[in-house]
Amino acid sequence: MNKGPLTLDDMDLSAGKKARLYRLLYTHGPGNGKMVVLPIDQGLEHGPRDFFDNPQSVDPEYQLRIAVEGSYSAIAFQIGLAEKYIGKYAGKVPLILKINGKTEVPPDDDAFSPLTSCVADAVRLGADAVGYTCYVGSASQDRDFLQFSKVREEAQRYGMPVIMWAYPRGKHIEEKGGKESLYAVDYAARVACELGADVVKVNIPQFNAEKAAKSPKPYNTLNLNAEEGVRKVVQSAGKTLVLISGGSKIPDAELLDQVRSVMRAGVTGLIFGRNIWQRKFEDAMAITKKIREVVTAEAGAKKSGYSTALV
Amino acid sequence: MNKGPLTLDDMDLSAGKKARLYRLLYTHGPGNGKMVVLPIDQGLEHGPRDFFDNPQSVDPEYQLRIAVEGSYSAIAFQIGLAEKYIGKYAGKVPLILKINGKTEVPPDDDAFSPLTSCVADAVRLGADAVGYTCYVGSASQDRDFLQFSKVREEAQRYGMPVIMWAYPRGKHIEEKGGKESLYAVDYAARVACELGADVVKVNIPQFNAEKAAKSPKPYNTLNLNAEEGVRKVVQSAGKTLVLISGGSKIPDAELLDQVRSVMRAGVTGLIFGRNIWQRKFEDAMAITKKIREVVTAEAGAKKSGYSTALV
Amino acid sequence: MNKGPLTLDDMDLSAGKKARLYRLLYTHGPGNGKMVVLPIDQGLEHGPRDFFDNPQSVDPEYQLRIAVEGSYSAIAFQIGLAEKYIGKYAGKVPLILKINGKTEVPPDDDAFSPLTSCVADAVRLGADAVGYTCYVGSASQDRDFLQFSKVREEAQRYGMPVIMWAYPRGKHIEEKGGKESLYAVDYAARVACELGADVVKVNIPQFNAEKAAKSPKPYNTLNLNAEEGVRKVVQSAGKTLVLISGGSKIPDAELLDQVRSVMRAGVTGLIFGRNIWQRKFEDAMAITKKIREVVTAEAGAKKSGYSTALV
Amino acid sequence: MNKGPLTLDDMDLSAGKKARLYRLLYTHGPGNGKMVVLPIDQGLEHGPRDFFDNPQSVDPEYQLRIAVEGSYSAIAFQIGLAEKYIGKYAGKVPLILKINGKTEVPPDDDAFSPLTSCVADAVRLGADAVGYTCYVGSASQDRDFLQFSKVREEAQRYGMPVIMWAYPRGKHIEEKGGKESLYAVDYAARVACELGADVVKVNIPQFNAEKAAKSPKPYNTLNLNAEEGVRKVVQSAGKTLVLISGGSKIPDAELLDQVRSVMRAGVTGLIFGRNIWQRKFEDAMAITKKIREVVTAEAGAKKSGYSTALV
Amino acid sequence: MNKGPLTLDDMDLSAGKKARLYRLLYTHGPGNGKMVVLPIDQGLEHGPRDFFDNPQSVDPEYQLRIAVEGSYSAIAFQIGLAEKYIGKYAGKVPLILKINGKTEVPPDDDAFSPLTSCVADAVRLGADAVGYTCYVGSASQDRDFLQFSKVREEAQRYGMPVIMWAYPRGKHIEEKGGKESLYAVDYAARVACELGADVVKVNIPQFNAEKAAKSPKPYNTLNLNAEEGVRKVVQSAGKTLVLISGGSKIPDAELLDQVRSVMRAGVTGLIFGRNIWQRKFEDAMAITKKIREVVTAEAGAKKSGYSTALV
Repeated sequence: MNKGPLTLDDMDLSAGKKARLYRLLYTHGPGNGKMVVLPIDQGLEHGPRDFFDNPQSVDPEYQLRIAVEGSYSAIAFQIGLAEKYIGKYAGKVPLILKINGKTEVPPDDDAFSPLTSCVADAVRLGADAVGYTCYVGSASQDRDFLQFSKVREEAQRYGMPVIMWAYPRGKHIEEKGGKESLYAVDYAARVACELGADVVKVNIPQFNAEKAAKSPKPYNTLNLNAEEGVRKVVQSAGKTLVLISGGSKIPDAELLDQVRSVMRAGVTGLIFGRNIWQRKFEDAMAITKKIREVVTAEAGAKKSGYSTALV
Repeated sequence: MNKGPLTLDDMDLSAGKKARLYRLLYTHGPGNGKMVVLPIDQGLEHGPRDFFDNPQSVDPEYQLRIAVEGSYSAIAFQIGLAEKYIGKYAGKVPLILKINGKTEVPPDDDAFSPLTSCVADAVRLGADAVGYTCYVGSASQDRDFLQFSKVREEAQRYGMPVIMWAYPRGKHIEEKGGKESLYAVDYAARVACELGADVVKVNIPQFNAEKAAKSPKPYNTLNLNAEEGVRKVVQSAGKTLVLISGGSKIPDAELLDQVRSVMRAGVTGLIFGRNIWQRKFEDAMAITKKIREVVTAEAGAKKSGYSTALV
Repeated sequence: MNKGPLTLDDMDLSAGKKARLYRLLYTHGPGNGKMVVLPIDQGLEHGPRDFFDNPQSVDPEYQLRIAVEGSYSAIAFQIGLAEKYIGKYAGKVPLILKINGKTEVPPDDDAFSPLTSCVADAVRLGADAVGYTCYVGSASQDRDFLQFSKVREEAQRYGMPVIMWAYPRGKHIEEKGGKESLYAVDYAARVACELGADVVKVNIPQFNAEKAAKSPKPYNTLNLNAEEGVRKVVQSAGKTLVLISGGSKIPDAELLDQVRSVMRAGVTGLIFGRNIWQRKFEDAMAITKKIREVVTAEAGAKKSGYSTALV
Repeated sequence: MNKGPLTLDDMDLSAGKKARLYRLLYTHGPGNGKMVVLPIDQGLEHGPRDFFDNPQSVDPEYQLRIAVEGSYSAIAFQIGLAEKYIGKYAGKVPLILKINGKTEVPPDDDAFSPLTSCVADAVRLGADAVGYTCYVGSASQDRDFLQFSKVREEAQRYGMPVIMWAYPRGKHIEEKGGKESLYAVDYAARVACELGADVVKVNIPQFNAEKAAKSPKPYNTLNLNAEEGVRKVVQSAGKTLVLISGGSKIPDAELLDQVRSVMRAGVTGLIFGRNIWQRKFEDAMAITKKIREVVTAEAGAKKSGYSTALV
Repeated sequence: MNKGPLTLDDMDLSAGKKARLYRLLYTHGPGNGKMVVLPIDQGLEHGPRDFFDNPQSVDPEYQLRIAVEGSYSAIAFQIGLAEKYIGKYAGKVPLILKINGKTEVPPDDDAFSPLTSCVADAVRLGADAVGYTCYVGSASQDRDFLQFSKVREEAQRYGMPVIMWAYPRGKHIEEKGGKESLYAVDYAARVACELGADVVKVNIPQFNAEKAAKSPKPYNTLNLNAEEGVRKVVQSAGKTLVLISGGSKIPDAELLDQVRSVMRAGVTGLIFGRNIWQRKFEDAMAITKKIREVVTAEAGAKKSGYSTALV
């Protein structure tokens, strides 16, 4: 069952959510209903170790410069960076306020990401969306769902779009095939949709025969390539738009292939951090340009064929 | 002590609860005080694996089409699906907003289903009832009762009927005969009534001699067939209307026999998901028609004889 | 140190609490400052298994009929039963709303009874008191005291009398002589008084030499009969009125002896459930009449002699 | 560094706190800035077993009679006793409302004393202070500090003095020398001061060479007598007034020696329960008189010499 | 990538935060955008044992006298000391209200520092900042982040600067190199920035080859001296000003060398407690003078060269 192209009008959004998503999908970035987001929350999630490859990246001004000059759809910041750095660029690049987070220090067995700010902060800072990490399947999932439910409610009140970083995590996910399995990623995308996220950020599912054997049927034997896997995830996400995470830095050709595959699979866009800002500025601009070309080309292709893209 | 036919007037309901239940029992569905509900919360509870048998079912539009064209009493959605899909069908099929839920990933030893939305969301979306899963007997039962008590209070304030998915669950239930035992199901129905649910959704109790031996007297030796077991449960539920769950897909003849048995036992209706939407559309319509015939026939039979049905 | 007869005026009650207790002690039931209450919360606390001996008892109408025709001082219901059944009898028999409860399924090691409704519900339903189970000595005692403290405060605001079901419970009580020991029951009665209950419901303490040896001095060797034990408990309860629980069904002669003993020991009344409604209606009326005669006779005797009864 | 005499003016108190402390320090009791308090919360903390030595003591009227006729500075009650017994004596003896408490049944490893009433109750009952037990060093210390912080805030709003029962408790205190060690008591007094108590109630520290060896330097070798130990504690408490607890009953001569020592060490007064009300009334009056003489004599002596007393 | 000198204007502060930070950076203390703070919260964090080396230090008047006569930028107090001691010195020395704290008694495995007061208390007491201890990496980190998030929000509302005592702590930090490792301190500084602290207080990172081996790359082999390590931390902290903690008392020459190194590394100032007030008054004044000379010299040097100092 293929979905036709998904438009903002199809999503039954309130005026506030629609206006803000419009800015992310049409006014900024590649436009044409596509989104390419630059996140910089790794300082909290991984610590400053991610900044060593490119020492300039420790200063959020660096990412802001990339986001503005590279015409990104938005930049994603924790509250501390947003309060101290976005003012100078207000209006030039949309802000996604990441409203929860944690460090990498405690283990992930019962991973939970506490709120670090709130939707009202996002409104005050002129943000166009909030980001929320939900650790699907974690032993702390109950606390997480409750916390998210309050965020969703507050976002509904203010007309603020909610982007869920839907991350399978914890020992029970490991028992069922691991956090990168199709079972886990597909489930996470559906959770985002069922709980009311407007956009969901997922990783590309990976097939590992040994691990998949622990997943429920039919995932235990389902070996899909990246494009097929992501297409499956896009269908499970329904009217929730899908963004693909970049993860750690990989070679350019591989990166662009990935972009092409996932765009063909019907995703709305990308959220690439380390693959961009761990490069020198000119390199970052160069890869940004290439990614954008692929996104635009695929978005155009979609318009005249089968598509789940926003048009 | 047999109860006579239970009417909406007998239930001492507020005007708001009565008006909404009237829509579920008379205006939509088979009418005549009976209810057949189509639930689609399996994407959250089990993940997308339930959609493989019939790939169309991944799109909630599919279930909405079944619900509208098959004249179901209501469709049950989590908040995310309700927000994004019900608008187009508003007024055509009543909405039951399922306001809590969880994934199948963490084990059920101390099962707890956190709130994912609230009664005010149901009001805003024009829903005619809220659904709440209570894991009776779970080690987290205390949190569950507290959470339900707030829902009941909010529902009372807004005149919103409450349907409790009353599921015995957890290691302590296993120690006393298991979640399918008559002891467990009968207890769960009574809990729904005592805690103030207007409607309760239960499974058909199953007799298993080995497991039943662990149940308290006289359940340890009580071997009732489906109709007798459900009649017992209907009595324990008192003025709380009883709906029977479908569970996983079973052969048609068996399904219709079950429907006949439980209707004769005095239940108010059915809540069948996978048995319906895991079929192609025409098959789904066909079985819907057959189920409805049995429900209507039994409802008519009740009117002129012993009955606990709403008239 | 013998207390003289305790009157409502001695209790320093607010007008609201006094008016409501007056209805329980004088307007309904045996009157003369005595109270005989019919509880029906066993469906929640034990499940429907308690209804098998007398199948009629599964329908709360049965207990209401006993309460009204037997002129009980009050009937005690959980919120669900109160909402659905009391309306027809409003004003005919006072309601005690039992505002917390649990099932028997999880073990009692750290027993805790979560709120299932609130004092405002009791006000709305025209109740004359709320009932609250406090598991004295449980490992969850801290949560329990906090929860009770909020109930007491809300009850103070509305002038609603509070009856504490003061039940010693949990592994630490077992380590000190068990839940039926004089140490435990006497302590529980005092806790009710210190925490601000207006009435306390306790069981008759039992002496068991082996268990008592684990109690603190002097309880470890104190072997009191039922009347002496209860008199001790009445003194520890101070200005908190004492009701005696019935527990499971026992022979009539034994029951009436018990009633006589505890009334002589100075209690304000009885709260007997299973001993009443596990009988056929005529039998229930017969034993009700006999209990009432004993209560009235003892209440009269008290008036002209040593007494802790309300006059 | 010796502190000069501490006066109410030195304490930077709000008008409300000052007015109420003035009643405790000058209007009632020995006056002259000294305080002798009669507590009766043992019924909750230890159960009725403390009342066996003097059966009259089970009735709070007994302690009230001692407090009034013995001119105590105040009587300390839990909410239940305060509500039911203080009315008749309102204005005759100041009330300290003990707003948290627990039973002795669960072990003290992670001791925590939940709120049983609130500062607003104290205001409503005309109390002149609230009492709060803080278990310093307990594994539940974090909950305790949070709870105390709300009490302090509410007390600040109403101008209600706060007396902290500062009790070192729990397994971690045992690992560092035990609850009676100078390390523990000295630390507890400082905690009271740092967290904002106006008055702190502590026990006399005891030296036990074996246990002290586990305390941090220099406490591991510091062997102070009662007077020296208490003087140390008084200094650590800073502008928080110090009261000394009585504990279980001891011989009169020993008791009076203790009183003399601690008054010389600069404490503001005493809070003696069992040593007083476990006696017959005449004995209680006699020891009260002797204690008062010592307190008054030492208070006078202080005035013309080194002193930490209020003048 | 070197940051240029950071000014108050660069920090995008609200008027309230700016006015208060201005008082700490320019009106009081060394001025010129530098800060030297005197903390006295050790009585709570370590107990009175820290006062033995200089018995005068037990009285907070002693530290206040040092702070005023030594022209410190501010004094840091818990609520109890602030309420009782600051009044006399109000306006003479700015107050930093330390709003959370704990004792050293429970172990630090899952360290958590509960709130002991709130931002509104700081406003009422005329404070110019609040201090908050965050145990980065602790197993209780989730509770900590949630608690901090409420503090940040309240501080934002009142325009109150927030100083985070960012302390790596707990068993998971030990598994990754320990609380003094560069990995841990660098991470903690970044957490402060990301979560929205205006100022962060850290310790000087220490290199220990054996422990560092457990840190993630490249920290596992990175051996930086004090100045290099702190410069790294200052960069990670971004627009969050950095203060260096003193820790336990060390020799003067070593202390002054440390001051020189960290000032050169670009920190905004120092927060030295025991190194100051564990000395006699004249010694305390002498070392204060020397520290100030170094701070001022380095601040001046910065002005005409590379600098991260406030100008």
